[in-house]
Amino acid sequence: MLSLSRTPARILQFSAKSTISSRRAASGLVKFQWEDPLNLESLLTEEEIAIRDTAHEYCQDKLMPRVLQGWRTEEFNHDIIPEMGALGLLGPTIKGYGCAGASNVAYGLIAREIERVDSGYRSTASVQSSLVMHPINEFGTEAQKEKYLPRLAKGEIIGAFGLTEPNHGSDPAGMETTAEEVDGGFILNGSKTWISNAPVADVFVVWANCKWDNKIRGFLLDKGLKGLTAPPIKNKLALRVSLTGSIFMDSVKVSHDALLPKTRGLGSPFSCLNSARFGISWGVMGALEDCVHRTRDYALERHQFKRPLASFQLVQKKLVEAQTEVTLGLLASLQVGRLKDQGQLAPEMISLVKKNNCGKALHHSRVVLDILGGNACADEYHVGRHVANLQVTNTYEGTNDIHALILGKAMTGIPAFAN
Amino acid sequence: MLSLSRTPARILQFSAKSTISSRRAASGLVKFQWEDPLNLESLLTEEEIAIRDTAHEYCQDKLMPRVLQGWRTEEFNHDIIPEMGALGLLGPTIKGYGCAGASNVAYGLIAREIERVDSGYRSTASVQSSLVMHPINEFGTEAQKEKYLPRLAKGEIIGAFGLTEPNHGSDPAGMETTAEEVDGGFILNGSKTWISNAPVADVFVVWANCKWDNKIRGFLLDKGLKGLTAPPIKNKLALRVSLTGSIFMDSVKVSHDALLPKTRGLGSPFSCLNSARFGISWGVMGALEDCVHRTRDYALERHQFKRPLASFQLVQKKLVEAQTEVTLGLLASLQVGRLKDQGQLAPEMISLVKKNNCGKALHHSRVVLDILGGNACADEYHVGRHVANLQVTNTYEGTNDIHALILGKAMTGIPAFAN
Amino acid sequence: MLSLSRTPARILQFSAKSTISSRRAASGLVKFQWEDPLNLESLLTEEEIAIRDTAHEYCQDKLMPRVLQGWRTEEFNHDIIPEMGALGLLGPTIKGYGCAGASNVAYGLIAREIERVDSGYRSTASVQSSLVMHPINEFGTEAQKEKYLPRLAKGEIIGAFGLTEPNHGSDPAGMETTAEEVDGGFILNGSKTWISNAPVADVFVVWANCKWDNKIRGFLLDKGLKGLTAPPIKNKLALRVSLTGSIFMDSVKVSHDALLPKTRGLGSPFSCLNSARFGISWGVMGALEDCVHRTRDYALERHQFKRPLASFQLVQKKLVEAQTEVTLGLLASLQVGRLKDQGQLAPEMISLVKKNNCGKALHHSRVVLDILGGNACADEYHVGRHVANLQVTNTYEGTNDIHALILGKAMTGIPAFAN
Amino acid sequence: MLSLSRTPARILQFSAKSTISSRRAASGLVKFQWEDPLNLESLLTEEEIAIRDTAHEYCQDKLMPRVLQGWRTEEFNHDIIPEMGALGLLGPTIKGYGCAGASNVAYGLIAREIERVDSGYRSTASVQSSLVMHPINEFGTEAQKEKYLPRLAKGEIIGAFGLTEPNHGSDPAGMETTAEEVDGGFILNGSKTWISNAPVADVFVVWANCKWDNKIRGFLLDKGLKGLTAPPIKNKLALRVSLTGSIFMDSVKVSHDALLPKTRGLGSPFSCLNSARFGISWGVMGALEDCVHRTRDYALERHQFKRPLASFQLVQKKLVEAQTEVTLGLLASLQVGRLKDQGQLAPEMISLVKKNNCGKALHHSRVVLDILGGNACADEYHVGRHVANLQVTNTYEGTNDIHALILGKAMTGIPAFAN
Repeated sequence: MLSLSRTPARILQFSAKSTISSRRAASGLVKFQWEDPLNLESLLTEEEIAIRDTAHEYCQDKLMPRVLQGWRTEEFNHDIIPEMGALGLLGPTIKGYGCAGASNVAYGLIAREIERVDSGYRSTASVQSSLVMHPINEFGTEAQKEKYLPRLAKGEIIGAFGLTEPNHGSDPAGMETTAEEVDGGFILNGSKTWISNAPVADVFVVWANCKWDNKIRGFLLDKGLKGLTAPPIKNKLALRVSLTGSIFMDSVKVSHDALLPKTRGLGSPFSCLNSARFGISWGVMGALEDCVHRTRDYALERHQFKRPLASFQLVQKKLVEAQTEVTLGLLASLQVGRLKDQGQLAPEMISLVKKNNCGKALHHSRVVLDILGGNACADEYHVGRHVANLQVTNTYEGTNDIHALILGKAMTGIPAFAN
Repeated sequence: MLSLSRTPARILQFSAKSTISSRRAASGLVKFQWEDPLNLESLLTEEEIAIRDTAHEYCQDKLMPRVLQGWRTEEFNHDIIPEMGALGLLGPTIKGYGCAGASNVAYGLIAREIERVDSGYRSTASVQSSLVMHPINEFGTEAQKEKYLPRLAKGEIIGAFGLTEPNHGSDPAGMETTAEEVDGGFILNGSKTWISNAPVADVFVVWANCKWDNKIRGFLLDKGLKGLTAPPIKNKLALRVSLTGSIFMDSVKVSHDALLPKTRGLGSPFSCLNSARFGISWGVMGALEDCVHRTRDYALERHQFKRPLASFQLVQKKLVEAQTEVTLGLLASLQVGRLKDQGQLAPEMISLVKKNNCGKALHHSRVVLDILGGNACADEYHVGRHVANLQVTNTYEGTNDIHALILGKAMTGIPAFAN
Repeated sequence: MLSLSRTPARILQFSAKSTISSRRAASGLVKFQWEDPLNLESLLTEEEIAIRDTAHEYCQDKLMPRVLQGWRTEEFNHDIIPEMGALGLLGPTIKGYGCAGASNVAYGLIAREIERVDSGYRSTASVQSSLVMHPINEFGTEAQKEKYLPRLAKGEIIGAFGLTEPNHGSDPAGMETTAEEVDGGFILNGSKTWISNAPVADVFVVWANCKWDNKIRGFLLDKGLKGLTAPPIKNKLALRVSLTGSIFMDSVKVSHDALLPKTRGLGSPFSCLNSARFGISWGVMGALEDCVHRTRDYALERHQFKRPLASFQLVQKKLVEAQTEVTLGLLASLQVGRLKDQGQLAPEMISLVKKNNCGKALHHSRVVLDILGGNACADEYHVGRHVANLQVTNTYEGTNDIHALILGKAMTGIPAFAN
Repeated sequence: MLSLSRTPARILQFSAKSTISSRRAASGLVKFQWEDPLNLESLLTEEEIAIRDTAHEYCQDKLMPRVLQGWRTEEFNHDIIPEMGALGLLGPTIKGYGCAGASNVAYGLIAREIERVDSGYRSTASVQSSLVMHPINEFGTEAQKEKYLPRLAKGEIIGAFGLTEPNHGSDPAGMETTAEEVDGGFILNGSKTWISNAPVADVFVVWANCKWDNKIRGFLLDKGLKGLTAPPIKNKLALRVSLTGSIFMDSVKVSHDALLPKTRGLGSPFSCLNSARFGISWGVMGALEDCVHRTRDYALERHQFKRPLASFQLVQKKLVEAQTEVTLGLLASLQVGRLKDQGQLAPEMISLVKKNNCGKALHHSRVVLDILGGNACADEYHVGRHVANLQVTNTYEGTNDIHALILGKAMTGIPAFAN
């Protein structure tokens, strides 16, 4: 599935580190690699490195050249999802159904590489993998899996995930969308908003409050159903390379096999969100890394007062503190990934890395953006685009404050959401 | 010059405060006005209040409805400068030549009202008033004043200010543009970048290093001169309602009367920048105020967990600390304005309010933006636009760090720019 | 009352500025005075300057030499209150009764000068002036005023203010101390804690819930009453030059004339706290100024890498941002003082400057402390002492968070204290 | 060497986690442990856990009850070093000479447990282990090792490390202390300051510039040598339970065997500092953990407005963000420890964790301190003591800024120390 062709220069640099140990001096010391200050590389498996390198190469070669055009026009590029599918980057942790069955860490590394280019591309992929393929795999029937997963994995079809409603962002328990059982199936009514991929989705995982027992369950809705529309939301200030829209369901009738049978209660969509948030925690570190690399390059090239900007204390401090947070955030997400693979995950762990990594990525991307001076507002320098995107990633799938309160509840035993 | 028609509702609210004193209880206490926590209003003259109200009304009635279209398309609206001129908002501190001769505080109040809508509109006006009209008034001949000032004041022509060069942002002393004296005038060569208004400018105040004595002087270049081009810079991430461009001068020949005769050395353009920076220090507070008002309204209307967002401690803290900085920043700029009017200004005072107000506006606009949750990235909510703009205002006309070092030099006697 | 002898060198430096205007160049610019960046001096009256200078001289000459000994031993110096009294620094805004009848700004300037030496000395004086003399003057009978005010003004007796209870810091409405009317007077029961001056107080303004109507009122308790004890709290980490203690009232019997008759409800002690908080907002700026001056001097003298610390960008930024906040905070407190003098005060204004100035003083004193490197932990360098003190000033008389919520309520109309 | 008696309750809680995996639900999720959010425990070896538990028990049982007395009096408790020695806590990574030969991670865990009580105790132990035993083991002769290491390991003698000079804190290359070769040995002259343990040290590792080749080397000086004095520095604002002093060398004559023969250049003392800094990076996390635990307990017990403080959003956020940084910092230090054990260490890695962990511990200890309200300044609540200590740990052994510049050099290739 994974095509491991030539490795780009930058990745070779990473891999070269494995030989450093043999070259290290008698002092027992090695040379510091600023791009990977605490040698995260040494904690990855060969398979993970291979997947990461594939993703890196694809993202730099294929996504990077398209990003400015996508950003400027808000036009969705329909080639991208199939390309990612061809490389095995969609639903990579699922076993079978044409998926790679890789580790959660590998999934995180893919997110990091995609978001190194743009958070919007990563959002598109996150939705497909964590919010559509994951619930079908976790809560679906064998028939549902066979129908949808292989095509989603290949990127032949695109999925969307409808949970958030216009009046219920941080508080999904207030859901107003309903499902009613009728002869031959269900009727769904309601609306969803800020739904990534919605305008181009072929299949929607929609969550509704089931009237018969007041429990929340997921349904699979195919595009084209009567009463189902998904208009785009345009003129976004961020994530402009990914499509966002609403979902309106006006008495949408589906048959019984549209129900994801193992879903019951908010725990089911939260399981999806946790998977997505885990990926986000990796992704935003990739975006911040790109900001650090670009502003460092700029600071080395750009001179003021006859010296490179990189020689100024105030500039060095910005770069160093950003790169420190990259390192800390990646180590933490790696540990969460390992625990997830071992079945040792607590959901609050994901709140911790989602909150921390998104918050730090946003803050430090903004700090290093200032290094660009007036060029900060030119989109060709890319960092301003990351800054705009990262504000959204810090907010969606649980705002920074909401995750603080989830963790606060875990620390104190007291829910303070409505305080 | 100033048309004082009906006062809009919001301003009436301000004015109502003047009657509060008569209504205050025996306790000697008055009711707190959160929009003006420390009663800045009481420190303004009647004329200043009238000018402010005129500007407020115009900006809310005429600019606000156009801002989204301008932002989305990056198209310059040619009606705006004449409209501002008709109201006396251009070059308002200049005496004579059709200008209002108002106080520096009045100038600041105008900037605040314009930037309450958008930093780009304020930038356009700042360039016209502080960077074009000011140097002509300060350094020009009587003939130059009479030729340009009345038309600039009315907004019949637009000006641009060419100081920053591609390789010299924070460090204008490294200027590479040259002026050479030749038979019948001067020949200018060089290029300028990130020049507001350039693509639509009728007249350019361009700074050049004079070959004959190695001193920097200003020149007035009319649009259409041979060798003079000013292509736009598009796809900006901020200030999209104002036009920005480069200025290229390829052996541009001008007559002797193009020279601004009283300019000599960097002190001359710095005088312009100080005037502009003073206005920016007011303007950004207006932008932050708009962010506070909008997010407060949103927090009052939007419910989560069955309560308004505004009832959450974490939300109140964000609003309060933003509004506190508005108050502190405006008081400081007011004091600087008064000192400027009294001839008691030190340029470092302007560095202080420019640095502080821009830095605080940027930080706190970002903080309150998070209150909008997912809606933060919809441009209809306006706050994200301010956030993008304020990053630029914090950087242009002296980055935050550069002003820190200007003040650091003033505090310690030691220049650390090249450190 | 005020003895205006020789003016110390540092003050002369201030006063010298008044002549600057006459010396200013034709450019209309004056030389920047970093100690007073926005020329606050120009906003003071001659009387205020004279009072400030007297206080400055006294504090530097008499308090500064004693502060280390007081800090190290936690021993109260009984000379200080009478000395302050002799100079008219106690209850300075009261008219008559041997008090100066000066402006609220003058009161603030005194607090700033005392706290420039130590927050503990300022606390002692604040209690005497704002929490004891103020309520007697505001809520007392003529007999009470004549009995207490002149002796308190001279510093012959010391007062304390008993509001905070062991279980009610931020929430005085939960007060448990009671007053019961009995034959010939009242009986008080309860306990108070963290009471400045308590162990040495001659008179206590104690607040109690009156059983007969469930209203809170103030009582004047003289030292030595049966059942009244005020043991000290020792081993404090801050404010070690001021005494703090508890007040225990075990069926303390007082006559009817102990009641402050015009008190009723929490508004009465809050009026005292507002007066004190106003003074604190000035005082902490004095402490921060002392930190800035000392660390600047250190940075100029101390060399590392063969250059003064003051030449490093990272050091300049620390100094500049601290001094900026001094300036902003003082301007804001000045405006609040002027409004207070004019009867235009809203209590929330005091929350704003108390919160802001204390928070900023604490933050920036900590930032500049780092300039001292290893010497930061030597008390001879004084800044570490200010840092420890300022943590308390940021907390007492309303924590930073509580004032945020007071202002949050004012901005949103929604109380969130119990959220 | 390690006595593994009864395990205290708190540790049992940790160990209980090992059984959680067997109890976890079919969901593949485990219960969140807020004290160890990302299950660091699962990354430790059994030996490391045993050593940690021993250290924890000792520190809580023996150090905690003494800390207030030591803090208040600045008196050194001579029992502590021998007690630590008896448990194998001194020089634990050294193989042989009565040392435990444990991992670097074990060393870090010990530092964390000691500093959970007080940074001063940890400083005392760090000096003994990293700055005295380490250089003797690394740079000494076999005779020197046999003479000193077993006694230092048992705590029979105490060591001190003399590098910092009065005029050279961040810049040891400017060292002024000299060693001159004379008949029968060397003569040392110079002074050192801010030397932990100096007043009670039996042996001093002193660094001097050797006149014969201008290289820096280390010397072992026994207490009592003629011309050698080590007076204490008293009245410290922090680290009051550890002794600090100066070292004065006035023509101190030592024999040739006082030289640590393998030392040459600043690399030798830097190797010691790196070992110590690694320990500090663990230690400060222990101090911060103690702050979090104490303020969380307080917030759960203390009620205001009829609710526990822990139910307030503003309080939860403080606790959560502090505990997040504990987790991130410990994971990073663990990774550095593993790399150190594997001979894969780069010194800049230690700068990263020293800078980050000290900075975060200082910041967040200050943030949570505010939860204590007025009680923050009572030393019985302990958090204020940690706050004072952590300011020093953030400064000593390389200030936060210096480590930023070390990392800045590594990232950019440009040294900016003297900028």
